[in-house]
Amino acid sequence: MTFIEGGVCAALGFRAAGIHVGVKTSNLSKKDLALIVSDVPCAAAAVYTKNAVKAAPLLVTREHLADGRAQAVLVNSGNANACAPDGEENARRSCRAAAKALGLDERDVVVASTGVIGQRLPVEKIEQGVEKLVPLLSRTGSHDAALAIMTTDTVKKEYAVETVIGGKTVRIGGIAKGSGMIHPNMGTMLCFVTTDCAMTPETAKSALLEAVRVSFNRISVDGDTSTNDMACLLANGLAGNDPIAGPGADYDVFVEALKALCTKLAINMAADGEGAKHLVICTVTGARTEEDAETLAKSVISSTLTKAAIFGADANWGRVLCAMGYSGVEFDPDTVDVAFESAAGRIDVCKNGRGLEFDEDQAKKILSEHDVTIDIRLEGGKASCTCWGCDITYDYIKINGDYRT
Amino acid sequence: MTFIEGGVCAALGFRAAGIHVGVKTSNLSKKDLALIVSDVPCAAAAVYTKNAVKAAPLLVTREHLADGRAQAVLVNSGNANACAPDGEENARRSCRAAAKALGLDERDVVVASTGVIGQRLPVEKIEQGVEKLVPLLSRTGSHDAALAIMTTDTVKKEYAVETVIGGKTVRIGGIAKGSGMIHPNMGTMLCFVTTDCAMTPETAKSALLEAVRVSFNRISVDGDTSTNDMACLLANGLAGNDPIAGPGADYDVFVEALKALCTKLAINMAADGEGAKHLVICTVTGARTEEDAETLAKSVISSTLTKAAIFGADANWGRVLCAMGYSGVEFDPDTVDVAFESAAGRIDVCKNGRGLEFDEDQAKKILSEHDVTIDIRLEGGKASCTCWGCDITYDYIKINGDYRT
Repeated sequence: MTFIEGGVCAALGFRAAGIHVGVKTSNLSKKDLALIVSDVPCAAAAVYTKNAVKAAPLLVTREHLADGRAQAVLVNSGNANACAPDGEENARRSCRAAAKALGLDERDVVVASTGVIGQRLPVEKIEQGVEKLVPLLSRTGSHDAALAIMTTDTVKKEYAVETVIGGKTVRIGGIAKGSGMIHPNMGTMLCFVTTDCAMTPETAKSALLEAVRVSFNRISVDGDTSTNDMACLLANGLAGNDPIAGPGADYDVFVEALKALCTKLAINMAADGEGAKHLVICTVTGARTEEDAETLAKSVISSTLTKAAIFGADANWGRVLCAMGYSGVEFDPDTVDVAFESAAGRIDVCKNGRGLEFDEDQAKKILSEHDVTIDIRLEGGKASCTCWGCDITYDYIKINGDYRT
Repeated sequence: MTFIEGGVCAALGFRAAGIHVGVKTSNLSKKDLALIVSDVPCAAAAVYTKNAVKAAPLLVTREHLADGRAQAVLVNSGNANACAPDGEENARRSCRAAAKALGLDERDVVVASTGVIGQRLPVEKIEQGVEKLVPLLSRTGSHDAALAIMTTDTVKKEYAVETVIGGKTVRIGGIAKGSGMIHPNMGTMLCFVTTDCAMTPETAKSALLEAVRVSFNRISVDGDTSTNDMACLLANGLAGNDPIAGPGADYDVFVEALKALCTKLAINMAADGEGAKHLVICTVTGARTEEDAETLAKSVISSTLTKAAIFGADANWGRVLCAMGYSGVEFDPDTVDVAFESAAGRIDVCKNGRGLEFDEDQAKKILSEHDVTIDIRLEGGKASCTCWGCDITYDYIKINGDYRT
């Protein structure tokens, strides 16, 4: 498996585009409508936020994907269409507009939104915008589409990978957005993945679930699980491989490649957390179960106090132990070792649950790098897990103290 | 029941003192050792953090309170004695020093610590300090004791109430500390309550649990549950009432007074959250159960994004609904009404789960007051609950980015 160029259009038969249609009113140069289309119908699957308050487009998409089939994805940024008047009707109108412009059935359109909650979606702008968007669709449109789904994101997230399945080269590409209101619980962001690998809708669903579990569900920016999170996979089969219809070697190869792609997108999302200056990588080894390891690592990356310590390049490992302690996982604190690690080196700060003497200057240097690893080792078993987060900064407060206006 | 002066020494027979002995090394004028003593033995009970990583003094205190009896409380700030070398031995040495200076059995001494995790407790300073502390004990020492248990707190928390039980006037007084690493899960801070009301140890335990449940367990500053949290009640019986030995009218009167005291201390703690500029009061009514109402309210006050919105005086009620949605409670989003309220007025922002048109300037004015109420109404049942939190500010990041050094 290798990483390749092309993002969400890397797979055969996919085109994309992104433009500004006016949903984002504050900045007229910012793109806010993206469209991804396959030349042929796709097996399709999606996972959605676990938040009980679900945005209207998620409900409509769930309905449209009931038959495991889709051919286009329409996404707007700037307005979440959640808790908004006429939400469901406006999500349907968006699909209808895209379907009409593309000559598709509206039930083959996936729709998603991201932005402010509670305001009416300016659906007329989307209806008019789609007309302009369709002629712009191209095999090199991934970049524009990736820009058009961003909100407070500072960098676009687009990646693609290539592997061989059943003697055929298959490609998987994706774009994603996510910067705030990010916390592991199903989708936790928007992510659209396309592939030319042939498979059944059930296979697409199961592969997506497996990949999301170890990628997007293992990052956190601020502990807030959004109302709009969605990850979606479209598989159009143009690679010409024998369709994957269930478990087996082909399925495993595809899932591994999909995991690699989603993990890359997820890590980028964590690193681009609102206001973040650091990517925080927390690795737990020696846990009883993978679930325990994940819960411990997530608790550490989600701890506001640990995030503030990383921001201050302060080797305050006590907060790491504290966050492990309230995670709900049973473990023996007296077996815990903690080290901080980065491109500047590695430093042991805690051994068997007790503080070690360490060089504060060296620790500061290690923690001042962009990517910082918190390495936690237990003696409870053989399971391990890595989760990704970011620090909390003045800019996070600034961005979120005045998001709507 | 009325509020009275005197704090932790308001009840008959209690003396207290607080001095600087050198555990806090950064600021030589800051008190760091407090002692509270009863003239006679007390029925005593405590509740502790649910964090799996428990500080050594909690383990020692739990052992000492196994017989439901205590006569003195020794507390240091500046060092948590958690995950620290020789933690348990140093907690015992602290108790022993206090017991010796007071002429008590060391098993009648409650010990607590708060401050940096993972560093060795400078127990010698405490041993020497206790010698100087005992001669300073006085009926007016609550103020000094309240100062000596503070860490990043900016205001001391001391209150007392008076009520009549069995024809006798009884007093309940307390001091508390807590500013960061505050999240509802048992104690979540340090709080020491004294009373001259006569009761059995079992009664003290059950009354304390009831009071903590509706006060300290309903506040959150940053979602981090500390390793050192403890709330402790000492009842010396000097009011002369017939000892309360179980349920009944006397018990109910005492518990109501204790709840009022603990709630006052808890609200002060939330308002004094690290860096906080606002006290956030979240009231949920119309929930199916009190537990549901509490979970919803806690989720809202704990949401980093909601806290950032309050900091920015931004009426971003979508984040309120979002936080309710990921709380895990089942409810119908289409029945949710939200209003913001303060001394500057009240404004409805969401009706039946949909945004209302509202005056942004008026909303800004309401949210600019120090005390801000988020009033949430459901149509799920008749249960309600209020929880207290604070906003997140640049100062929170500043305080916690460099706490140790």
